[in-house]
Amino acid sequence: MKKFFDVILARNELKAEVFLKELEGKKPLFVCTIATTETAKIQGISAAGKYPEFTDYTPPADAELLLLGKCKCIAGVPVTPDGIPTPALITMSALRLADIPVLVASGGLKVKPQIPFLDLGGSPGRDIRTGKAVDNVEEVIQRASLAGEHLAKTADYLVIGESIPGGTTTALGVLSAMGVKAEGKVSSSMPENPHGLKTETVRSGLAAAGLAFGGLANNPVKAVACLGDPMMPAFAGLVIGAAQQVPVLMAGGTQMTAVLAVINALNPDVLCNVAIGTTRWVIRDGSSDLKGIVDQIADVPVLAADIDFASSRFGGLRAYEKGIVKEGVGAGGSAIAAMAKTGGAVNKEILLREIERNYALLMGVK
Amino acid sequence: MKKFFDVILARNELKAEVFLKELEGKKPLFVCTIATTETAKIQGISAAGKYPEFTDYTPPADAELLLLGKCKCIAGVPVTPDGIPTPALITMSALRLADIPVLVASGGLKVKPQIPFLDLGGSPGRDIRTGKAVDNVEEVIQRASLAGEHLAKTADYLVIGESIPGGTTTALGVLSAMGVKAEGKVSSSMPENPHGLKTETVRSGLAAAGLAFGGLANNPVKAVACLGDPMMPAFAGLVIGAAQQVPVLMAGGTQMTAVLAVINALNPDVLCNVAIGTTRWVIRDGSSDLKGIVDQIADVPVLAADIDFASSRFGGLRAYEKGIVKEGVGAGGSAIAAMAKTGGAVNKEILLREIERNYALLMGVK
Repeated sequence: MKKFFDVILARNELKAEVFLKELEGKKPLFVCTIATTETAKIQGISAAGKYPEFTDYTPPADAELLLLGKCKCIAGVPVTPDGIPTPALITMSALRLADIPVLVASGGLKVKPQIPFLDLGGSPGRDIRTGKAVDNVEEVIQRASLAGEHLAKTADYLVIGESIPGGTTTALGVLSAMGVKAEGKVSSSMPENPHGLKTETVRSGLAAAGLAFGGLANNPVKAVACLGDPMMPAFAGLVIGAAQQVPVLMAGGTQMTAVLAVINALNPDVLCNVAIGTTRWVIRDGSSDLKGIVDQIADVPVLAADIDFASSRFGGLRAYEKGIVKEGVGAGGSAIAAMAKTGGAVNKEILLREIERNYALLMGVK
Repeated sequence: MKKFFDVILARNELKAEVFLKELEGKKPLFVCTIATTETAKIQGISAAGKYPEFTDYTPPADAELLLLGKCKCIAGVPVTPDGIPTPALITMSALRLADIPVLVASGGLKVKPQIPFLDLGGSPGRDIRTGKAVDNVEEVIQRASLAGEHLAKTADYLVIGESIPGGTTTALGVLSAMGVKAEGKVSSSMPENPHGLKTETVRSGLAAAGLAFGGLANNPVKAVACLGDPMMPAFAGLVIGAAQQVPVLMAGGTQMTAVLAVINALNPDVLCNVAIGTTRWVIRDGSSDLKGIVDQIADVPVLAADIDFASSRFGGLRAYEKGIVKEGVGAGGSAIAAMAKTGGAVNKEILLREIERNYALLMGVK
């Protein structure tokens, strides 16, 4: 696939290249949308917390890492059960290298971060197997859209990321409710993608809500309310509000497709100003199919930061090459933005060096 | 006094002119810092709510007005006991005329606004007569400072306003604790400034905290904790974080002097990048003395929007000329910013016309 900076033009090359070139030298604002859902606590569904209960702490800890360079609500940083650190490490390194400002927005949290955050009026999400996953969806979309309108006036473009454990399962939930075939296609932070468990979870949720596959194709608000998570209305609203004025890079993996489906159903016009920005690990992942999901929704370009940890001196980073973690906290999108803002001066080598420096500091190794 | 645009250079003319000229054509971000204090409910102390209990709703309602063009948490708009509308009407008109983005930041609220707002970790304030007025002051200053650092990267300069009923009494409290002579000098939203009641309230608070006048000259954090309000740590932190990088216009009347005293004690270096922006009504007010308080603290310039409602066709606006309301919600500073951003295209006449248009819409008159 074609590259520009150290960015792979992964889908709709032509639009992707135009989109990326437009960002060169421009000043973005990075918004990190965080939320929690009880869905993450289903045994075996997420690696974004060492134990299921820890998933409540992962999003606020990620947000703290971005703003403070360290976590406050937990000791150390969020890690997978194998001790592989959060992708927020990549995001933080990219944003700092390129001096990109950060705003944290909450869609609904069990544990609040000990940093400034934008409250969008949402609540923590329930287990999607209840069929009643998220409260107040329409109101949060409206508030987030208002925030997006104002934030769009403060930057040349927005990069919006997310941190929510369990988010690929809720993504599958919303996509299924909206009639997008995504079973076996959503990504995972674990090397063994538990597709069966995700599918079973979503089917329970659909049944509990009295829904069939595609039953809410034209009702994205209800799809999120029944089978989604509280990151989604916050994220979708921000995009809708901002992309009317400036380009928006949706920074994430397959979770972005659920948000894309929601935006496409609510306000498709803004999508001409939108691209998905992810990592090489998501693009080359054999156990998921980001492009295959996007194809069913809207013709938006997909960019992927060509970051490669194979040569890292740290096992905890080389593990990313084995398909662990892959993406999250806008890692890919923030890397793309850092490269674009600096006109390529930040490249994959410089980024890896900075990530290793921060890894050593935060993981207490040399 | 000298003018530039429709702005009066009210103190330190030379610096004021340089500061103002630097803003010409630049793109600001307006931050509205809102909070509540039980102090506002002392009978006769504030006009920022028709009844004392309403003061809990004034700040969120003001914030909603700025972002939505109407209030959600109350019917209509906040008014004084005489039915004179909130100065947020001026702010909203100025910001919309000049297309200036708004961010609302909460220092601690009883009632949350139904719009996106930045949570800075604070709590509503207690009656200062307890001598224990505000919790968590240091932490809120730190969080706000972090927010200010990031926001400074998104704008050419910041304009920061406030909405907190009872705020001139808490200002007198902090100034007194810090040894600044302000008795009889703080402003009021009422035509008859209740200086005696404010002084008595502050003296009760000092006694309850076991403090003498000036006893906390070098401890601004404790001065706010004992006798201040939750707007102050949020506001001071934002200024400290932002003014290290960009100019900051502190938009308000005599309340700004308490925040100025706090900043001056914590981080005086940033004050070279700071000015106070207020209204003509504060500057010419015979019952208060903004400049006399500033003189005791730091040599910052004071600018005043030369807005004049004498010719308005609405009695509710002409009342401003009798000394009712005078300032609040960053009315003066936002008017100055609107004039500066548009290079004077927004002037006092155009602003009054827009304010009258919004007055008619919101007050349901013609």
